[in-house]
Amino acid sequence: MVRKVLIIGANASGVEAAASARKKDRTAEITLITEEKNAGYSRCGLPFVIGGQIQNFKDLVVYPPAFFQMLKLNLRLETKATAINAREKTVTALTKEGIPELFPYDSLVIATGAYSFMPSIKGKEKTGILSLRDMEDGEKIDAVVNGGAKTAVIMGAGLIGLELGVGLIERGLKVTVVEMLPQVLPQLLDGDMAKMVQQHLEEKGMRILLNRSVEEFLGEEKVTAIKASGEIYEADLFISAFGVRANTKLAVEAGIQLGESLGIKTNARMETEEKDVYAVGDCAEATNIIIHKPMCPQLGTVAVRQGKVAGANAAGSYSLFSGVLASAVTRLFEIEAGNTGLTETAAKRNGMEVVTGSISSKTKADYFPGAKPIKVKLVVEKESQRIIGAQVIGGEEVTQRINCLSFAIQQCMTVRELAKADTAYAPPLCETWEPMVLAAEIVLMKLR
Amino acid sequence: MVRKVLIIGANASGVEAAASARKKDRTAEITLITEEKNAGYSRCGLPFVIGGQIQNFKDLVVYPPAFFQMLKLNLRLETKATAINAREKTVTALTKEGIPELFPYDSLVIATGAYSFMPSIKGKEKTGILSLRDMEDGEKIDAVVNGGAKTAVIMGAGLIGLELGVGLIERGLKVTVVEMLPQVLPQLLDGDMAKMVQQHLEEKGMRILLNRSVEEFLGEEKVTAIKASGEIYEADLFISAFGVRANTKLAVEAGIQLGESLGIKTNARMETEEKDVYAVGDCAEATNIIIHKPMCPQLGTVAVRQGKVAGANAAGSYSLFSGVLASAVTRLFEIEAGNTGLTETAAKRNGMEVVTGSISSKTKADYFPGAKPIKVKLVVEKESQRIIGAQVIGGEEVTQRINCLSFAIQQCMTVRELAKADTAYAPPLCETWEPMVLAAEIVLMKLR
Repeated sequence: MVRKVLIIGANASGVEAAASARKKDRTAEITLITEEKNAGYSRCGLPFVIGGQIQNFKDLVVYPPAFFQMLKLNLRLETKATAINAREKTVTALTKEGIPELFPYDSLVIATGAYSFMPSIKGKEKTGILSLRDMEDGEKIDAVVNGGAKTAVIMGAGLIGLELGVGLIERGLKVTVVEMLPQVLPQLLDGDMAKMVQQHLEEKGMRILLNRSVEEFLGEEKVTAIKASGEIYEADLFISAFGVRANTKLAVEAGIQLGESLGIKTNARMETEEKDVYAVGDCAEATNIIIHKPMCPQLGTVAVRQGKVAGANAAGSYSLFSGVLASAVTRLFEIEAGNTGLTETAAKRNGMEVVTGSISSKTKADYFPGAKPIKVKLVVEKESQRIIGAQVIGGEEVTQRINCLSFAIQQCMTVRELAKADTAYAPPLCETWEPMVLAAEIVLMKLR
Repeated sequence: MVRKVLIIGANASGVEAAASARKKDRTAEITLITEEKNAGYSRCGLPFVIGGQIQNFKDLVVYPPAFFQMLKLNLRLETKATAINAREKTVTALTKEGIPELFPYDSLVIATGAYSFMPSIKGKEKTGILSLRDMEDGEKIDAVVNGGAKTAVIMGAGLIGLELGVGLIERGLKVTVVEMLPQVLPQLLDGDMAKMVQQHLEEKGMRILLNRSVEEFLGEEKVTAIKASGEIYEADLFISAFGVRANTKLAVEAGIQLGESLGIKTNARMETEEKDVYAVGDCAEATNIIIHKPMCPQLGTVAVRQGKVAGANAAGSYSLFSGVLASAVTRLFEIEAGNTGLTETAAKRNGMEVVTGSISSKTKADYFPGAKPIKVKLVVEKESQRIIGAQVIGGEEVTQRINCLSFAIQQCMTVRELAKADTAYAPPLCETWEPMVLAAEIVLMKLR
């Protein structure tokens, strides 16, 4: 009998699940349904189309129709799943024409993603507040910019808020970012590291207002200003970047259990509490490798890794997801910033006793022209002396240092081992003493 | 009683040993003697002065006189150690003026480095064959280039030969590299990976002749041509880059034992077979972490790591050296190439059964402008499935990937663990699926 694999959602995790299922089962009937007009594109690339580095939104399509045809994947665009019946093993959906359709499945993968979260702010029903989640959102923002917008207010200084802010500045807008917390990138960085990023953004002309809560959207039908901590900020463009939340409505209505982080609860096979139903990507929980607690990292890398595991399992194979460190990185103008594992703040919030060490160095030999500054911060659990987190900010060569430290954490490297590590060196490429190693030295001095 | 720490050699490993000894013993009398006119400079930077990226040879001085003064290190330039008396615990040396001087010590660190090796080739006593080991060598080459040299023949396609070759091409010379082996960078890369480097160099105008042995130096007193595998190659400048050998003469004459790789034999404290005598840097052996055999990696990073350990021990403290993977990296025109651990060739030479996997990818998201090619090759031990070596070649972001894989090897990561690793991603900085992870997938497919 031909296995029916049904996937709700057709971006990072959904497509990966489909491709993975196809690898394990050549004859399965694999169907992806998505309410979006586009599938298989990179959400993470949206800010760079706004910024103009990438010409068209369509350029973000990583998996074109030919890919789906080649793998014999049945892709149904503009088809909105409306209900999951886990007992009957069916999903009902509304087609583009508004016609209900029943999709039976043997295995179901929920890859419904996340949505832009809007807090209950006075006036939030007014029009003119945009967010950046999908391609159509991007097109709307682009249209406002092309329409002559001169100023923008972005609410939220997380990754999406700042990346979009950079893009809008590159398009010539004056950008103000309003953030409730006392720092930018609160999920990614500790306050001390975030200051470096903030300073760079301010030097590039971004106005950043911290410790300000948005209290009201002002204007008639359309928002023309916001009130934040008593002050009024007018603009031509308003972006809601308060954060994203797991899109779990379908799952909840089907009685599928959520976890404590409010994503869909999953086991190591990415299976939900409901048999033969898997959940992956931004809507699904994953276990943090360090604290062994579920979390919703909502990152592209996690989405594809989960998709691959769930797709294999959905096709009758056996695959385990190894958990997350939520390693992430971003480029903002000429600065790159990344994190892996726990920030100092997150570690303390989880009751861990930590010792940290930071070092500022350069990305090439000191005497080599063009060396850029780089700063590494390590977070080390005091009792085990294991590295549990790391942040890196610099002008270049940040991403793979995050990966280095991610590998170190995953392999239980102690700070002593890092201080003695064998690293590579050449004057045009790095310093003789690798900054990660020097940061370990700093921690060791504090541990003595 | 004040401890006397004596160090023969005052570059990477010697200076590091001195600084490390000072950290552990504030009152010790620490003396460095070197026959060179300059101390505390970066040898690895020499090719880039020739190339013109760095203005002056003096710019390579990483530790200026003020550094030695600050740490109260007694630096004796142009002082040539002539004999070690390990029983009496003294070193005799000749000062600049040719006066013998006796240096008593409590601890001795031998950091005599390496020398450019010249095989017994007919005519090798003739003048005009230069090499690039120290600052004065660099000045000599620079003088020949400034004197109007138009063509150069470099004998040896190792790191120094190729980096210098690039520098000379950047200065406008026509460069021919003659290599005995069938590939460039035979220590660093496997043949398949070396081909990529060779192709890039050839595109940039370097003539590379493989499988050619230099048989004779031609010319009257001064070399004007070489004969290699029967062919005659004329040039204005001849560089001997056959490789370097540990400088062990002093040690051997003092009865200090060498190891099987012909470097000075050391234990994990970097101590020689002679009590209170340590050896570090290019003249000393170190244990390879994977095969547990001594080797002479002759790399700057290894030198400073060893110097730090030996300096601490020489000052009465306790420190262990953790061994080497001999991670190394180089930039040649617009390509970066690196290795950590064993190449496939080296693994097989050591009797290991390995499975390899290579993947070509890009350094940014496929749709992001400016993405450069990158190739990762993994070498995996078949029985344990542990990663034991990795090579990376690409347009950027190579060094820290080598460090990632170096950490992976040091922490005994299996290829399965790498295939499931948590990595960081952003469109301007890398691909969603990290190439190192994809290479692990390739190996896994072969293992199944």
